[in-house]
Amino acid sequence: MSEHIVSSYDADLQGLRQRIAEMGGIAEKMLVDSVAALARHDKPLAQTVIASDPRLDVLHREVEENAILTIARRQPLAVDLRETISAIRIAGDVERIGDLAKNIAKRALAIGDDFQPHKIVVGLRHMNDLVMGQLKDVLDAYAQKDTAKALDVWKRDGAIDALYTSLFRELLTYMMEDPRNISFCTHLLFCAKNIERIGDHTTNIAETVHYLVTGETLAIDRPKNDRSIDASVEAGV
Amino acid sequence: MSEHIVSSYDADLQGLRQRIAEMGGIAEKMLVDSVAALARHDKPLAQTVIASDPRLDVLHREVEENAILTIARRQPLAVDLRETISAIRIAGDVERIGDLAKNIAKRALAIGDDFQPHKIVVGLRHMNDLVMGQLKDVLDAYAQKDTAKALDVWKRDGAIDALYTSLFRELLTYMMEDPRNISFCTHLLFCAKNIERIGDHTTNIAETVHYLVTGETLAIDRPKNDRSIDASVEAGV
Repeated sequence: MSEHIVSSYDADLQGLRQRIAEMGGIAEKMLVDSVAALARHDKPLAQTVIASDPRLDVLHREVEENAILTIARRQPLAVDLRETISAIRIAGDVERIGDLAKNIAKRALAIGDDFQPHKIVVGLRHMNDLVMGQLKDVLDAYAQKDTAKALDVWKRDGAIDALYTSLFRELLTYMMEDPRNISFCTHLLFCAKNIERIGDHTTNIAETVHYLVTGETLAIDRPKNDRSIDASVEAGV
Repeated sequence: MSEHIVSSYDADLQGLRQRIAEMGGIAEKMLVDSVAALARHDKPLAQTVIASDPRLDVLHREVEENAILTIARRQPLAVDLRETISAIRIAGDVERIGDLAKNIAKRALAIGDDFQPHKIVVGLRHMNDLVMGQLKDVLDAYAQKDTAKALDVWKRDGAIDALYTSLFRELLTYMMEDPRNISFCTHLLFCAKNIERIGDHTTNIAETVHYLVTGETLAIDRPKNDRSIDASVEAGV
């Protein structure tokens, strides 16, 4: 490759990384705000979250199309090729995280001022704090190509799943205690599920960072602690 | 391009299309079997569905990596470039459809022989028939590059969302009638949600086929009829 081509290629990659950083910032904000809107019954905040999503979709498409154009134009090989593949994968995961946060915001609007058991809201916020930590760390790991940090995120996902299972169990109990709780508990159930899914996407990103840096796929099984499917049977008596 | 390069490129594309066709076949079978396993309390069938998922994941990665290698090697332009981008997008959607079907199968295992209201099971099967029709048609549309057929799938998604909303409402009613229904109704709620999400993925694929054939993105809003978020508030008193 001539020096000219190399530097255009670097500029292309820089453009991809910048867009992904912008996407990460938007998704983080959407996630924090959606759960805050839910906890504080803050409808304008929920609307703000929903209004942020189209920008994320635009950036996602841009990353996808620019990455492909970069590959077609510059014919990168080995690590450079992995850079572009990774950009496409990570943009896809961040876009989905935004969708899931938007869904929480929609539910915050729908629930409105319905009673929400304090303990559940605390549980959701705690779960969200963990996921937010994962998201920040994995985006840092991507920016710094830090595979050890990525692996750490990957290992931590089990704690989120365990928290989800216990929240799930508690929500079922509230529903059984009083049928008037069923409607908003169902919303909270889906919100908890969304946060757990966001955790899964941070794990995907961690796997992509590992692939980007090492060229290898993480073959070992994920540390899955989601027992909610069984828990609901136990709790259901 | 020399003739030699053109024909290797065609062979590459053929390989991508074959893998996607195989993925489509596996995903269709997983979807049908997962709902059948749920309706008939057929645990071995549910296990079969779960066991099919890894093959789908392998094919997904192969499509992604081969598509990228094809782009790097052959530097396709215009419609040829869209072919490879589309293959990546569609493989991603089909892989997610498999994940969602696997989740239904896991719930089928967890519910076991618990009572399931006949009406709900009929509703789920009906919803699933619609989604299966969408999936078959959109995969045909892709194979035949038939944008009219793809657009037809895209328009039909509203019917699935409407059905989901009514199932959702009914499930909430059962839960309120008797707390013993809450546990398995929660599973059925997530199953219905999964089928609705599969419908969304068929819509994504329809959009990709449109982009593949025309080079343009479907800009108009999707025909969304999912009112379940509001419905649960109404039903919640």
